Amino acid sequence: MSELNELGAKQVANLVATKKASAEEVVAACIARIEAREADVGAFQYFDADYALKQARDLDNGPSKGVLHGVPLGVKDIIDTRDMPTGNGSRVYPDRHPISDASCVALSRAAGAVILGKTVTTEFAYFFPGKTKNPHNLGHTTGGSSMGSAAGTADHMFPIGFGSQTAASVTRPAAYCGTIGYKATTGDFDLQGVCGLAASFDTLGFLCRELEDISLMREALIGDAPKAPRADNAAPKVGFVRTPWWDQADAATHRALESAAEKLAAEGAEVSELELPSGFEDLVETHKLVMAFDAARARAYEYIYHPDKLSPQFTALMEDGNGVSYADYREAQARSVGCRQKLADLMASYDVLLAPSAPGEAPPGHDATGDPLFSRMWTLLYVPSVTLPVATGDTGLPIGVQVVGKAHGDGALISDAQWIHDRLK
Amino acid sequence: MSELNELGAKQVANLVATKKASAEEVVAACIARIEAREADVGAFQYFDADYALKQARDLDNGPSKGVLHGVPLGVKDIIDTRDMPTGNGSRVYPDRHPISDASCVALSRAAGAVILGKTVTTEFAYFFPGKTKNPHNLGHTTGGSSMGSAAGTADHMFPIGFGSQTAASVTRPAAYCGTIGYKATTGDFDLQGVCGLAASFDTLGFLCRELEDISLMREALIGDAPKAPRADNAAPKVGFVRTPWWDQADAATHRALESAAEKLAAEGAEVSELELPSGFEDLVETHKLVMAFDAARARAYEYIYHPDKLSPQFTALMEDGNGVSYADYREAQARSVGCRQKLADLMASYDVLLAPSAPGEAPPGHDATGDPLFSRMWTLLYVPSVTLPVATGDTGLPIGVQVVGKAHGDGALISDAQWIHDRLK
Repeated sequence: MSELNELGAKQVANLVATKKASAEEVVAACIARIEAREADVGAFQYFDADYALKQARDLDNGPSKGVLHGVPLGVKDIIDTRDMPTGNGSRVYPDRHPISDASCVALSRAAGAVILGKTVTTEFAYFFPGKTKNPHNLGHTTGGSSMGSAAGTADHMFPIGFGSQTAASVTRPAAYCGTIGYKATTGDFDLQGVCGLAASFDTLGFLCRELEDISLMREALIGDAPKAPRADNAAPKVGFVRTPWWDQADAATHRALESAAEKLAAEGAEVSELELPSGFEDLVETHKLVMAFDAARARAYEYIYHPDKLSPQFTALMEDGNGVSYADYREAQARSVGCRQKLADLMASYDVLLAPSAPGEAPPGHDATGDPLFSRMWTLLYVPSVTLPVATGDTGLPIGVQVVGKAHGDGALISDAQWIHDRLK
Repeated sequence: MSELNELGAKQVANLVATKKASAEEVVAACIARIEAREADVGAFQYFDADYALKQARDLDNGPSKGVLHGVPLGVKDIIDTRDMPTGNGSRVYPDRHPISDASCVALSRAAGAVILGKTVTTEFAYFFPGKTKNPHNLGHTTGGSSMGSAAGTADHMFPIGFGSQTAASVTRPAAYCGTIGYKATTGDFDLQGVCGLAASFDTLGFLCRELEDISLMREALIGDAPKAPRADNAAPKVGFVRTPWWDQADAATHRALESAAEKLAAEGAEVSELELPSGFEDLVETHKLVMAFDAARARAYEYIYHPDKLSPQFTALMEDGNGVSYADYREAQARSVGCRQKLADLMASYDVLLAPSAPGEAPPGHDATGDPLFSRMWTLLYVPSVTLPVATGDTGLPIGVQVVGKAHGDGALISDAQWIHDRLK
């Protein structure tokens, strides 16, 4: 059997439920891993081992609270916790102590999760990086913004962590860290107590190592039961979407996607190339415009009253947003609505789409978090997405593929992603 | 000229800009009115006259900050203010002091508003009433949830106040208090720092006495310039919608709506009755289901950790929401999407719709806030709405009509509502 810290959330919940391990043992194993690696990786913004152990012991001493009983959970530090500081990755909030939990934290706690600690985020989940380093190569970025949850999951510090995505903040760090990243259909998860960046796009997600753990969290948060595999475990119909930005992905990414498509076809999936119709090539710019407009409103307080504490990147975003007219914003939103409908029509012929997660491996250095290019469109389109680690690039770092589902078809996506993952991993 | 506290926000801004009045004089007039009436009406959850005057003096001593320079603004107490407590109408938060402003407050301050105080809300903007009494008859409710902003505006304590609507929380108190209520197209205004009730529906709005003040706020918050009247001040095409719940409105409301429709036709508007197609009659129940599901997530923290501090009404809402399956929730959401599209198609033939705001006058007593029946559907449909005071009922209390616009056609709605208001008031 794997070490306890290497198990998935569902596996942990099963062990704890059947008394084959205690929550305390699981948390202790996570703590041991964190103590061995945190100085290098820096996944946590806040971590108190004793308090994590206390939560675990309290769970062990009580009746089962729910489907997450005993599961250690990393919580991105834009998500409020009543018992741990929440800094939103910002110098504006060096000592912010929420008096209540975000809804997703309250629901996770109520289902028995151990809130292990707060994981590093970029500033307000935008571009200015936190301290986290890529566990596969400490000289490289993890990607952002859900960097601590991605690195901590990839490095076996905990089975699952909350992430959030406004542009590529789950997909990119998942791909760069070689772990699974899930962005829900926009609107599925409540965002009370989650620091917002752009209301049109902000979406919760998870970083984890097992697909079944996504279903587990959906059950805990919204009561969505896991979807069974297709009858006879039949293959999904896959649309291979190179996207209009294919040329901006490197050769290793091209190879990873093409060989994934070939492999799935060889395994019996109906795979065909889907070229997106005219209009979709504008969606990166459309996403940038809407995000900037929204962000200039959402973070108005910090921009107006604490400009000296914002990074140049964030200040530029706010200035961009303040420069967007309401008319242009509405036009961009209307264009987005049209493309969402077009995508829904296109996807009637497919179960899932296969697309790049990022332009390539995690770039070297820690001054930036890489390019969100390959996720902006999907985030704008509100569709759920799972990133799966499938290959390594020229410098030995992970490369992911993105499996995209239908809006509100998250259960089916996870089930199909499992079929795909079983054949590509 | 009216007393300064009787002016609208735009009128105040113009006076202050042209130095015909100082912000301090305006605020002093509001304070005088508040001091005369607050003990009876109870519009404020928090009010500090000295601090309001200090803000005004600071504005008078500086350059113009923006379009709201010198305008006193009531802020519903579910909206965070960094300098005033924010209790969300809940016994869970008797002493909550946000460390930052909600985005709408920060943007209003930056545009020169005086944050006059925090106005009373029901518990988490749901049904359990706050202390506010109807200024037209203290024995009657103001309606909820934006009760303090409605009463304070109606009673000339301030020109404009923030409200929010998830079911009928702007429309109903506006109608009951005989003031103007505006609910924006859902999504237009950012909600960072606003306590959420149901993410699918939560929408900011305003209570005010002048329609031009809505445009002023839209300019301050999202840069949307006011829309000019139609060429030659032409009449809008009006669809008169009795709604499937017409029988539940009282005779005075029937008369108010019918005579409004007649009067507008007599004034040159093309008025025709619009019967909503099959399916719309389910939208009240659909709204209740989605709202309950959402609320059970949004306020999970309070329900799980402070059940003893919640009202029976709120507890029932949470229990209802926890009893809704994800499948039923999704079905309700899909039904809503379909009806939004149908309404957009129907509205192609109209400029605005005319509909009841409430079943009748404000009911007597203070244990409840009246029935949200006539707003649930419009809130679910995401369309903007303006309630105008047009009549009085059998006990002499105000009756409003609702003028409903096209989604994202808020500017046109305000302009058309002005045309209508000029003819009905």
